Amino acid sequence: MYKLSALINAFGGELRGEDIEISAVSSLDSAVAGCLSFCLGNKFLNQAKACQASALALREFEPELQCSQIIIKDPQLFIARVLSLLHPAPKAQGKIHHSAIVADDAVVDPTAEIGPLVVIESGAVIGANTLIQAGTVIGQNAKIGAHCLFHARVVVYADTEIADYVEIHSGAVIGSDGFGNAWAGQRWEKIPQIGRVQIGSHVEIGANTTIDRGALDNTVIADGVRLDNQIQVAHNVKIGAHTAIAACTGIAGSTTIGANCLIGGGVLIAGHIDIADRITLLAGNGVPSSLTEAGVYASGVPVMPYASWARNVLQFRRLDEMTKRVKKIEKQCLAKDSEQ
Amino acid sequence: MYKLSALINAFGGELRGEDIEISAVSSLDSAVAGCLSFCLGNKFLNQAKACQASALALREFEPELQCSQIIIKDPQLFIARVLSLLHPAPKAQGKIHHSAIVADDAVVDPTAEIGPLVVIESGAVIGANTLIQAGTVIGQNAKIGAHCLFHARVVVYADTEIADYVEIHSGAVIGSDGFGNAWAGQRWEKIPQIGRVQIGSHVEIGANTTIDRGALDNTVIADGVRLDNQIQVAHNVKIGAHTAIAACTGIAGSTTIGANCLIGGGVLIAGHIDIADRITLLAGNGVPSSLTEAGVYASGVPVMPYASWARNVLQFRRLDEMTKRVKKIEKQCLAKDSEQ
Amino acid sequence: MYKLSALINAFGGELRGEDIEISAVSSLDSAVAGCLSFCLGNKFLNQAKACQASALALREFEPELQCSQIIIKDPQLFIARVLSLLHPAPKAQGKIHHSAIVADDAVVDPTAEIGPLVVIESGAVIGANTLIQAGTVIGQNAKIGAHCLFHARVVVYADTEIADYVEIHSGAVIGSDGFGNAWAGQRWEKIPQIGRVQIGSHVEIGANTTIDRGALDNTVIADGVRLDNQIQVAHNVKIGAHTAIAACTGIAGSTTIGANCLIGGGVLIAGHIDIADRITLLAGNGVPSSLTEAGVYASGVPVMPYASWARNVLQFRRLDEMTKRVKKIEKQCLAKDSEQ
Repeated sequence: MYKLSALINAFGGELRGEDIEISAVSSLDSAVAGCLSFCLGNKFLNQAKACQASALALREFEPELQCSQIIIKDPQLFIARVLSLLHPAPKAQGKIHHSAIVADDAVVDPTAEIGPLVVIESGAVIGANTLIQAGTVIGQNAKIGAHCLFHARVVVYADTEIADYVEIHSGAVIGSDGFGNAWAGQRWEKIPQIGRVQIGSHVEIGANTTIDRGALDNTVIADGVRLDNQIQVAHNVKIGAHTAIAACTGIAGSTTIGANCLIGGGVLIAGHIDIADRITLLAGNGVPSSLTEAGVYASGVPVMPYASWARNVLQFRRLDEMTKRVKKIEKQCLAKDSEQ
Repeated sequence: MYKLSALINAFGGELRGEDIEISAVSSLDSAVAGCLSFCLGNKFLNQAKACQASALALREFEPELQCSQIIIKDPQLFIARVLSLLHPAPKAQGKIHHSAIVADDAVVDPTAEIGPLVVIESGAVIGANTLIQAGTVIGQNAKIGAHCLFHARVVVYADTEIADYVEIHSGAVIGSDGFGNAWAGQRWEKIPQIGRVQIGSHVEIGANTTIDRGALDNTVIADGVRLDNQIQVAHNVKIGAHTAIAACTGIAGSTTIGANCLIGGGVLIAGHIDIADRITLLAGNGVPSSLTEAGVYASGVPVMPYASWARNVLQFRRLDEMTKRVKKIEKQCLAKDSEQ
Repeated sequence: MYKLSALINAFGGELRGEDIEISAVSSLDSAVAGCLSFCLGNKFLNQAKACQASALALREFEPELQCSQIIIKDPQLFIARVLSLLHPAPKAQGKIHHSAIVADDAVVDPTAEIGPLVVIESGAVIGANTLIQAGTVIGQNAKIGAHCLFHARVVVYADTEIADYVEIHSGAVIGSDGFGNAWAGQRWEKIPQIGRVQIGSHVEIGANTTIDRGALDNTVIADGVRLDNQIQVAHNVKIGAHTAIAACTGIAGSTTIGANCLIGGGVLIAGHIDIADRITLLAGNGVPSSLTEAGVYASGVPVMPYASWARNVLQFRRLDEMTKRVKKIEKQCLAKDSEQ
């Protein structure tokens, strides 16, 4: 139970209405008495009016609302912070589960917690207050920082370096071999991948995301990067600080992505290219070459009813030919025109 | 060994030919004597004639075939049921493997089976006849129904609710945090994800598919949904009953998908939109906005030889300009035309 | 430490300059004294000139370089082989970790190594010198060949057959059920998937890749195939020898892919089609129908600044209509033209 004034003391904002206590944060639709909810703009105003919450965080005072209001510039950030207060992340308990397999020469900080059936291989280091949940595997000589949270069944390959305050979700694989093959006339030969993965601090990595180790140099994820689920990061990719990437995106080898980019879901980014800082790529983009200017980019052809799609795609296949036909018409008709 | 008449008694159909015994179901190409196979239409008729099976299930009697025939409206469904009879799913044996780690306050039904190196965390509940295979992790307070089959190395996060007769394949992750981040001026702050995942009955979930928990409210998968491999379901998505989704599809946050939809592979569906009931999305669709009418939808530009693709794409980049040129021609030439 | 002459004896090439010893392989940018690096063409020549390596492998002698040179037709392959010499893959130690759960009737070759918390189920066979790392699960009656390397937390379902020298990365799932459902009027019924997965020798499979077992017949991956991360291979797919497929590609059921194909990342290949030998599919392709001619194929519409993309896509939706307008102009204006 927190008083609204206590939340405002901690996270800012201005109180309008009674200084009640709230016990939970809810969406506009499912809030009940005792809840704090939030309104992110005018298009949610009717929902807000019907909402049963005892308090709302919003940008501007809304005289029609009956409940207490917290007026704050960024209600979403305010709510994120209240949620962190009400639902703190699990804390490491300074213990190693009896079923975990920890190599004799691994170094686990006494404040860290190692869950059931975790494997910590030879030479690995686990930092202070880090919590490693069930079934995760930490490879040889991997270095994991402090205050990290690895959920169940993460794999970290040998020699990976991960800084502090990194959260990794289940099924993520960090440090697998890059896709390096040399054609030997009749068959592929593997190019051993001897680089590592380096992950900065305050990074979050989603479920079943894969980040390959570098071929010779390292794959590098900078501080504050946010990766959603099922993202593929190939060998020697570099992702700049605070860039956020949505699910199902794939980044091919040796590409550099700038800082503060926003990359939508299902984007495919070619190898050996550079994406500048502050670029926004909408979902589904295919990016075959470097982008040097900050801005918003799109690609692809979005959904249509099948019949009209089929007719249009047929003409797409003749687009170059049609351009020539238009050129011919212009030459003959418009030229004639000006002759007359 | 089953007599054809026994299969017909159980699953319908009409026998033409001898009431032989079959011991296996095979494809048309690999069937041998003793096998039952099936023919789904005229385009497979030549294969059916060359087939060595002792019996065939098909829609209409085919006088040229030598083998016994089972005439039935839906041969594929008939075969599915025969296969279920010949190859029943593994059954829970009512035991807990000695290597499993089951919390003292978890509740495992005595008819359930818990495989080797499974972890069942505090407060979790496992229903009757449910089989949890090797290395799976069931998080705190997760509720798993009866007659479920979880293959090796599934992860179910805390508080997830899964109904009866749900099958989940290896590597699937249910209940990981949604991709919720609030920008705090210099860096992202995580928005704690306190919703859950609710999964109805008779759902099947493919290998390495990920379903995120809701931000505040729940992510909901209705009864009878079929999800293939490597699908990403973001926070607060709702998928309606009996919708089937093929592999590699990604659904962004807070989107609602109707009942009885058929969604192809590699489809990208934007967040905060509604897909109506009975919509078919062909593979590779990009869906940026709501679809309200049942029907078949397509998008994208399919494969071409590189040279012609490159020429056509070049003109696509000038399509708006070309439209203006055509408009100009129309204005000048056709107008002139009508003047004459 | 290897002398250049020893490397040349083993892997070919011609020495120009001093026969020094090298202790490591590095990229051009990070090489220091004692390193061998390589130059793959003229566009890297300036980097090569600034490089601190003591020796370089390259195609043609470069008089301006100060370091020793190894002149060889394929420097990348040469480097791959030197790396394999300096960084040999981990070797099986002929032991079973005490925490592994190995069924009494599983057969593990005495030269094989089974890591911590591995599960080997009943009837499985593990060949000579094969190394199975932590947390991997090998299902009932699966047959694994010799000299394989399975990284941590792979899942191999029952009855899978894997030949020799196969490397599989973490999170890969081999043999999960294909997506087989028959509509039973009100709901889906599962079609039991009784085929297997067969994997040839010298195959490498990336992290979190999924390969489904066949419905009735088998899914087949031929010798020498290379699969990157997060690839989905559906039931009954056949992939020909030495085909290499980049990450995030999905192949739908019953499709056959030829030998020696090069398939880019994020490609979607429809079901029940044939891709001929020696086909190159660029990244992001959508392939709805068979391709019978060797060659390079592309599809899709690559990235553009949002504003011009939106204008062009708008016209794409009217492309069929515009074609008719152009046809009309041709008929009226050009016909008139020829009349004159």
